[in-house]
Amino acid sequence: MNFKIRAAKKDDCKDISRMIMELATYGKMPDEVKISHKELERDGFSSNPFFQCLVAEVPEENKSKEGQGIGKSLMSKVAQLGKEKQCMRLQFAVLDWNTPSLDFYVAKGAQDVTASEGWHFLRFDGEALDKLANEAED
Amino acid sequence: MNFKIRAAKKDDCKDISRMIMELATYGKMPDEVKISHKELERDGFSSNPFFQCLVAEVPEENKSKEGQGIGKSLMSKVAQLGKEKQCMRLQFAVLDWNTPSLDFYVAKGAQDVTASEGWHFLRFDGEALDKLANEAED
Repeated sequence: MNFKIRAAKKDDCKDISRMIMELATYGKMPDEVKISHKELERDGFSSNPFFQCLVAEVPEENKSKEGQGIGKSLMSKVAQLGKEKQCMRLQFAVLDWNTPSLDFYVAKGAQDVTASEGWHFLRFDGEALDKLANEAED
Repeated sequence: MNFKIRAAKKDDCKDISRMIMELATYGKMPDEVKISHKELERDGFSSNPFFQCLVAEVPEENKSKEGQGIGKSLMSKVAQLGKEKQCMRLQFAVLDWNTPSLDFYVAKGAQDVTASEGWHFLRFDGEALDKLANEAED
């Protein structure tokens, strides 16, 4: 293996932020990214972190090579860490036109439960979220 | 208001577990529930909890009355607490045949981003999750 998977450190947040933007650009929604490395540092590296993150370290001489299985290794590691915490499921979201990713996950054994069971994502954000929050009783 | 919204306590986990099963039965998938109140107590009430939970306390004499806005109040409180933690979005999943719930959320300002943007849920569980985890490098 020409790379190493490890837990992210606070210093990785600038690179993580850059990759979030790269993914959003690939997903055709770069304007949806509201988070910067500052918020990632705050949310992921405080005393009660909101998320954990893995990164792959790839030596400079291997960076141009595709198909090294980095994505698969990261996903397997997430599954392993989840199992250690007694998680029963690993769930995530993929855009329906992103067929290379959908095919990849399904080939690894994932179920598309939007297709098979009918699960839809609902989202409050922006003014709708503000309005909902403002209607709460104190 | 004939009810009170408060943070759940460890002692509420038996009731929360019962309501999870009631929801799963309504969702036509009672066999999917793998969690008991013991796991809820462990996961939600340890030093670094996996989740937070709100409950509505309803006086005995009001329990038979529907349409008191309990669901709406719980949802608004979640939004308020999320905003306090600088959350930008409130996301959740609804089954596509559950049109009363879908209509309710959309009327409150939620977007169905599976319909509008094409987000699908992917899930690894059971043997597929075991296999994925076992393929991880140590």
